[in-house]
Amino acid sequence: MNLPPQTVGDVGEQGLLQRLLPFCATNIVGDDGALLAIGIGQSLVVTTDVLVDGVHFSDRTTSAEDIGWRAAAANLSDLAAMGAAPLGITVGLSLPPDVTLDWVEGLYRGLNLCLNKFNTKIIGGDVCRSSVITVAITACGQVAPHRAIRRSAARPGDAIVVTGPHGGSRAGLELLLHPEQNNHLEVALRQSLIENHRRPIPRLDIIAQINEIVKDNWPVGGMDSSDGLADAVMQICRCSGVGAEIDCNAIPLFPGWQKFGCTALDYALYGGEDFELVLCLPEKEAISLVRQLGEGAAVIGKITAGVEVKLVDAKGVYPEQMLNLEAGFQHF
Amino acid sequence: MNLPPQTVGDVGEQGLLQRLLPFCATNIVGDDGALLAIGIGQSLVVTTDVLVDGVHFSDRTTSAEDIGWRAAAANLSDLAAMGAAPLGITVGLSLPPDVTLDWVEGLYRGLNLCLNKFNTKIIGGDVCRSSVITVAITACGQVAPHRAIRRSAARPGDAIVVTGPHGGSRAGLELLLHPEQNNHLEVALRQSLIENHRRPIPRLDIIAQINEIVKDNWPVGGMDSSDGLADAVMQICRCSGVGAEIDCNAIPLFPGWQKFGCTALDYALYGGEDFELVLCLPEKEAISLVRQLGEGAAVIGKITAGVEVKLVDAKGVYPEQMLNLEAGFQHF
Repeated sequence: MNLPPQTVGDVGEQGLLQRLLPFCATNIVGDDGALLAIGIGQSLVVTTDVLVDGVHFSDRTTSAEDIGWRAAAANLSDLAAMGAAPLGITVGLSLPPDVTLDWVEGLYRGLNLCLNKFNTKIIGGDVCRSSVITVAITACGQVAPHRAIRRSAARPGDAIVVTGPHGGSRAGLELLLHPEQNNHLEVALRQSLIENHRRPIPRLDIIAQINEIVKDNWPVGGMDSSDGLADAVMQICRCSGVGAEIDCNAIPLFPGWQKFGCTALDYALYGGEDFELVLCLPEKEAISLVRQLGEGAAVIGKITAGVEVKLVDAKGVYPEQMLNLEAGFQHF
Repeated sequence: MNLPPQTVGDVGEQGLLQRLLPFCATNIVGDDGALLAIGIGQSLVVTTDVLVDGVHFSDRTTSAEDIGWRAAAANLSDLAAMGAAPLGITVGLSLPPDVTLDWVEGLYRGLNLCLNKFNTKIIGGDVCRSSVITVAITACGQVAPHRAIRRSAARPGDAIVVTGPHGGSRAGLELLLHPEQNNHLEVALRQSLIENHRRPIPRLDIIAQINEIVKDNWPVGGMDSSDGLADAVMQICRCSGVGAEIDCNAIPLFPGWQKFGCTALDYALYGGEDFELVLCLPEKEAISLVRQLGEGAAVIGKITAGVEVKLVDAKGVYPEQMLNLEAGFQHF
């Protein structure tokens, strides 16, 4: 009996990525972006993201301008995650013919609103016809080779720093999806959480500060928390061959989290799209960095020898199973 | 009375690009790729192409491996068109869940077959779910800033060189689409034309030769002929503010063109996807280059003052209207 051929849906996103890895430059893939030497003292960082209508965004929660902002923010965050300064983005846009020019211009306006904030630009792209709106963005950045932040560079003893509060973007999405269930919240809080979701801010602003504090004490391990804080910690540990101990009570949550009860921590760990950085560096530098970044930044735990990732709270120590990555979003 | 809002379909590809231009870094867009200074003596070239199932490829004429090859070739050709050496490509892939893993692996195999030929690699990407297969590729390359080939650099008096024969890819497509109408052709010719279409070869191989011959006599004007030879000449003239006179009889046509009668010249001018370079440089260097490239390369005309593009053949001189760009492919 012939079995039917395996499909993309059968193996899921992770399964597909595993199958495609042998086709890629394995020494280069694995971080938020590719890192390429391009001459003395300079490395190029390149990162690509694809957004599909109905999968990554929907008219229900997102205007064209917001889609643009969020797409730019996600890509700039990948550059920040590697310590790179942006050079520009390209936009590969597929559109059904009935999309209005207003919508497309809204998308580009949103892209530019975010890009302009970081003095960078749309440097090229392609437009073509399709049956579904697809936005493929590639961002390029540059970094001094020895100052690239890598997922694989965490070392036992490092403190784990988050550069800002988590869970706010997921809480904002909740308010957009179920406005009726949350109308007891104050208007200002609602608006600020929705803003977290609609207009997340990539942390390109702190790359210079990180460089200043770390001085010659590189490498720094890390990535961004775009797929959730739990995912970031797990990825860093897996790529660095280390474990971690995270103090739940140390995780800075979004303002007003108390109104969301226990789900607030879930939002922080698994919600994603907060676009903060998760950095692993020696304790002294970690404390300096947190102090300089101010409210919202925190040391949330430490990197340990071994491979176990533990989550600790007032009630005890949980094994890594509690970091339930199945709760993360799989695109297939 | 309110008019319905204008759509992408109403204005077409060129109309849409005109609307989007104000959102882009206008000093950077306009060539086959973006050109960005990235430090002393180095410029980065970035180019993006999106291919959509049913628009740019179809199972009828193209295997997954061929789609991969052609996608890589198109992007590498954009780098060659700017005189750049490849650094790598990223692949943003959107897939319906029922696509087989065999198909996806075929695509990546095809990409790598072409990339390996030029010692370059897949350096990153993204995969996600969609209702239609979409392949968004971004290629990065580098070039010394004063040795970038630009569409805007043609000057009156320059000779116009094509680096190889034209029309073969379009003829090959014809054989794939209508095998029954062309079964009088010899098998070897059929196969070679189909190969032109299935596995076009970007001209990265000649960048070193161009540099050697041109020496310090830069800039060189030019682009690739991916959208047809007529389109390339028109784009170069428009961007450089010059005219051109093309000798139809000098255009090198694909082997066996005689079997296609008058359509052969149409294929060469409007068929596209030959992925040769169209270069504008002083006559002396042009002749040296053609001699060095050998059979298939030719001087096909010259750049003139003014803005008229003339097509000349044994029967006389035709005005630029004969370069009927409406015959080109518009994606909306």
